[in-house]
Amino acid sequence: MTIHIGIIGTGMIGEEHARRITLQLTGATITAVTDVDQEQARGVVERLGLAAEVYPDGASLIASEAVDAVMVTSWGPTHEEYVLAAIEAGKPVFCEKPLATTADGCRRIIEAEQAAGKRLVQVGFMRRYDSGYQLMKEAIDTDRLGAPLMVHAAHRNPEVPERYVTPMAIHDTLIHELDTFRWLLDDDYKNAQVVFPRKTRHAHSQVADPQIVMLETVKGVRIDVEVFVNCRYGYDIQCEVVGEEGVARLPEPQSLQFRQSAQRSNEILMDWKKRFADAFSVELQAFIDGAASGTLGGPSSWDGYAAAIAGDVCVRAQESGAIEPILMPERPAFYA
Amino acid sequence: MTIHIGIIGTGMIGEEHARRITLQLTGATITAVTDVDQEQARGVVERLGLAAEVYPDGASLIASEAVDAVMVTSWGPTHEEYVLAAIEAGKPVFCEKPLATTADGCRRIIEAEQAAGKRLVQVGFMRRYDSGYQLMKEAIDTDRLGAPLMVHAAHRNPEVPERYVTPMAIHDTLIHELDTFRWLLDDDYKNAQVVFPRKTRHAHSQVADPQIVMLETVKGVRIDVEVFVNCRYGYDIQCEVVGEEGVARLPEPQSLQFRQSAQRSNEILMDWKKRFADAFSVELQAFIDGAASGTLGGPSSWDGYAAAIAGDVCVRAQESGAIEPILMPERPAFYA
Amino acid sequence: MTIHIGIIGTGMIGEEHARRITLQLTGATITAVTDVDQEQARGVVERLGLAAEVYPDGASLIASEAVDAVMVTSWGPTHEEYVLAAIEAGKPVFCEKPLATTADGCRRIIEAEQAAGKRLVQVGFMRRYDSGYQLMKEAIDTDRLGAPLMVHAAHRNPEVPERYVTPMAIHDTLIHELDTFRWLLDDDYKNAQVVFPRKTRHAHSQVADPQIVMLETVKGVRIDVEVFVNCRYGYDIQCEVVGEEGVARLPEPQSLQFRQSAQRSNEILMDWKKRFADAFSVELQAFIDGAASGTLGGPSSWDGYAAAIAGDVCVRAQESGAIEPILMPERPAFYA
Amino acid sequence: MTIHIGIIGTGMIGEEHARRITLQLTGATITAVTDVDQEQARGVVERLGLAAEVYPDGASLIASEAVDAVMVTSWGPTHEEYVLAAIEAGKPVFCEKPLATTADGCRRIIEAEQAAGKRLVQVGFMRRYDSGYQLMKEAIDTDRLGAPLMVHAAHRNPEVPERYVTPMAIHDTLIHELDTFRWLLDDDYKNAQVVFPRKTRHAHSQVADPQIVMLETVKGVRIDVEVFVNCRYGYDIQCEVVGEEGVARLPEPQSLQFRQSAQRSNEILMDWKKRFADAFSVELQAFIDGAASGTLGGPSSWDGYAAAIAGDVCVRAQESGAIEPILMPERPAFYA
Repeated sequence: MTIHIGIIGTGMIGEEHARRITLQLTGATITAVTDVDQEQARGVVERLGLAAEVYPDGASLIASEAVDAVMVTSWGPTHEEYVLAAIEAGKPVFCEKPLATTADGCRRIIEAEQAAGKRLVQVGFMRRYDSGYQLMKEAIDTDRLGAPLMVHAAHRNPEVPERYVTPMAIHDTLIHELDTFRWLLDDDYKNAQVVFPRKTRHAHSQVADPQIVMLETVKGVRIDVEVFVNCRYGYDIQCEVVGEEGVARLPEPQSLQFRQSAQRSNEILMDWKKRFADAFSVELQAFIDGAASGTLGGPSSWDGYAAAIAGDVCVRAQESGAIEPILMPERPAFYA
Repeated sequence: MTIHIGIIGTGMIGEEHARRITLQLTGATITAVTDVDQEQARGVVERLGLAAEVYPDGASLIASEAVDAVMVTSWGPTHEEYVLAAIEAGKPVFCEKPLATTADGCRRIIEAEQAAGKRLVQVGFMRRYDSGYQLMKEAIDTDRLGAPLMVHAAHRNPEVPERYVTPMAIHDTLIHELDTFRWLLDDDYKNAQVVFPRKTRHAHSQVADPQIVMLETVKGVRIDVEVFVNCRYGYDIQCEVVGEEGVARLPEPQSLQFRQSAQRSNEILMDWKKRFADAFSVELQAFIDGAASGTLGGPSSWDGYAAAIAGDVCVRAQESGAIEPILMPERPAFYA
Repeated sequence: MTIHIGIIGTGMIGEEHARRITLQLTGATITAVTDVDQEQARGVVERLGLAAEVYPDGASLIASEAVDAVMVTSWGPTHEEYVLAAIEAGKPVFCEKPLATTADGCRRIIEAEQAAGKRLVQVGFMRRYDSGYQLMKEAIDTDRLGAPLMVHAAHRNPEVPERYVTPMAIHDTLIHELDTFRWLLDDDYKNAQVVFPRKTRHAHSQVADPQIVMLETVKGVRIDVEVFVNCRYGYDIQCEVVGEEGVARLPEPQSLQFRQSAQRSNEILMDWKKRFADAFSVELQAFIDGAASGTLGGPSSWDGYAAAIAGDVCVRAQESGAIEPILMPERPAFYA
Repeated sequence: MTIHIGIIGTGMIGEEHARRITLQLTGATITAVTDVDQEQARGVVERLGLAAEVYPDGASLIASEAVDAVMVTSWGPTHEEYVLAAIEAGKPVFCEKPLATTADGCRRIIEAEQAAGKRLVQVGFMRRYDSGYQLMKEAIDTDRLGAPLMVHAAHRNPEVPERYVTPMAIHDTLIHELDTFRWLLDDDYKNAQVVFPRKTRHAHSQVADPQIVMLETVKGVRIDVEVFVNCRYGYDIQCEVVGEEGVARLPEPQSLQFRQSAQRSNEILMDWKKRFADAFSVELQAFIDGAASGTLGGPSSWDGYAAAIAGDVCVRAQESGAIEPILMPERPAFYA
């Protein structure tokens, strides 16, 4: 059985996913694409040699009989509308983060999905599919570390463009950690605080960079995440979990070890796409397989909602400088 | 276009390849299988849910119109016959090592392939597709290390069964290094010597373990490979290339770093299948793509022949204790 | 010239210092010792074969003509009295931390030392003499990292005795970091906050363990220090400085790398005395040389005062849960 | 008790030792120095502020009542004469390698020392005092690795001067490994072979560089040592011992780990003096203590003799290209 996928939004990430599905993954074909820039959509079809029709808009694509499952990789503010439409059509939908730009939007999706009576949404938090984080989760779940007490993490990018402003450190960058740690620790957040170190001279004027976000979970784990998006030296994701019985640290990407010029050195990646390349593949294959079997798994719309709520509080904490409570509604049994 | 593949030999490695092609790779379907144990072949079809016919023998499978390309994963002594038949039928053939059990057998394949006027054979030296070795090759080819002068390598297995005897350290184990270093260095071997350290107490009586194989290449590179197949602690492949301008070392497989019980530790794999899992996928995808486009690449039958010649000399060197010359015939332009 | 040293307090650390001075260092002889337990003092003289007289008390030892320089390694609450007496006598004095148990006590020492018109006090903050921290300071001072923005640190002990209570995480443990980071960054603290993760099951009832202390410096550097004194697995000191131009991490103590039992592993020390053994030697030699030349260097009584002030605020922050300001008086030109 | 030391030869290494003894070690004073260049000797006395007399020659220095123990750090060909004179005078003597420039010379020393009836000679093989090698020896002696089977080693220097010719790779460079492995394995050599990889373009015309020396021990351990004295990138000493139960690798010198410019990097030392700085101190302190107590330990003249014999055979193997037997005389009970 081959799943027919329609892609809404054929920008960089949309094209990347289309290429992956077509060249590397099994069980799916791209049969439909659309983009606000129709020329762009046609270009992707041509570049990848897809047997796909270009639709005039998301609504018609979702409605099409040629489409079994939908991927939403359009501009963030449009996500909610397309996800709701896919749910309405009863079609599985993969939605890149954010699920919606507001917690309210996420809530509307959750309600619609529950009303539909069936999980139809997978949110694009690819780190859950990274082999390193999976080993970490296994170490926690098998109690090898004892109860987790602290997480020390860093999310570093070489640089960001001028349009990247302070709150984007939460909504665009930390958002991955916000999902990852809930999943890793099987826990929820209780409060958040953000502090600002001296600003790097490499940051643009509209962004406070770096930032340190401190989170407390319901179970009492303390998480600190350094977000440093103009660190220059590389794309570097670090995560150390400190438990009662030991400490585990995420593996770093592999490369040759060189001995040259009075140095032992290993390459650090500059490009985030390479860092999680395998995770993207596993993630999308999981969506294809879940859509085929009618049993979607992975990050749910509830997870998207939880990340949105925590993200909003972190932005508030950026502004207030205070320890801000994170209030999560009761999780419906539907998402248990 | 989907390539229809017939598999001859559905033992462990044949089934593994069938699973990979079916579940992970794109562009191919298994349409035919055979095995001396027909029951075994039927079992694989069932376990993997293949839409494949079970053929009574390799000849009929190769001849079948349902088969575009052939994979030979049967018992070593049968390889030559099937590869020759596939060439005769003008069908691309992937052959697990060894290409043939004798250098003469390999030569017959080379001659047949040249007579066919087209590359039809890819030999199963998967290390060329490992990302670590590819980085190493890139470091050499881009002259980052300067001229290579030495290679220090180790091939360690936790343990081997009782039927594993001294020459198998060459034909079954070192064979991978024999191909890898020719490719990595773009070079050929000039002579070989084997020395035997004190034997480990963990080795069975019929195998001298460990061994150290020393090779000199035509360009003057000196290679030493420790072959230690009862090392107990893990499956560990090491390779360090020492060049005029620096040294590079193969990355080790990734895992979490733990801090526990007065130790920092990282897991070492015990299972060779995990070590080169990604390489197997890239290798087989390359075969599928090459078969589809009619332009096979990767390790050729000439490479299989060269490894066979070097392997035979290494076995002679095991017996003589002397430095044994390795005489390679002139490479035909066909394999340039 | 040989400096004659008198030691006040011959407990574990006093005996250790006496052994170092006698067996490993040059330029000094222990000529006098005292302890509240005179028997203990006599035991040290005997065990180390010292040509030293046992004095009835600190005052008589300090006053003795046989003593050129004084080491105060007695119980913390007695430090102030002995240091003041040594200053009064015009003799160089090495004082283990704390310089005094209160900031006021430290201030009295500073005033006395300034009145004496000459640096006479070296405080026992040995980390400044550790080769790893010295490399870190060099990397910062030579601007290799650019302006420092953040410090991530951890101070982990395998376990602590029952008498170790929550404030001791500051006064006995963090005190080293409090001095180290002022020196490393050439900076002062602006405020402190302490948060408490879920408590490890290995902690006694009177200690909140672990703790995370967050400090902001005058220059805007943000420091987070994990203090975890029942971490079980080892004595582990970590420090990472994140600067505008790169990141540097403290080296870990050396040991063999083992490959055994499916693991690559390196030993982690269990014993803090081994971790800074070399630093202790360099520190004491610096005191001897400084006493001999009349030009004491290293951590001054001002540094002891600054650490005491910061420590007091951290304890307040433990209790309040709030961000507590750290107010440092103007540094007198005497200590510039 | 303070040992009065006379130094014969105040070149670089002699001055370095004099500085160490004077500034870092305990229990000894330099009371006498001599050098063929008397001006040079006077310079050292002045630079280090020694209370030492400059003697006209080694003989008068050895004979002087002001000298309890002798250090021979003069030009290699003069070592034998001075060591014999010190033995004759019944004074403990520390002799830098080589003990003598010929095995015959070493034998004469052994005979003289036995005739004197007492160990009087310590040879300057400092690696035995390096903490890394000592950990390795402990891992072997406590059977943690099981029976040693192989040693893989490398001795790399950034560069050598033009006067450094092919045999010096043995006599000046490998000589350290020749002693170290006998001690580490508690074993003797059985044969040696030397092979020459392609020569690096950075080597001068009179030296074949790199070289690989292969040794077999009496117990059957196979050792390969890469000697590469124009490797450019650093002074790099590597040693991996492969045993029946696991593998251990020598620690590398410590430095900060940097993350900069798309690289994780650690410094590699360029200067051999820094690599074994601590080992030199421990070595010389052992000589001082042994001289004081009348019980010299460490590398004996028998060890110097054994290294000389093995070195001579290695040079023969350089020339012959063959596997050359190493015949060690029976070890006298005196050196057991």
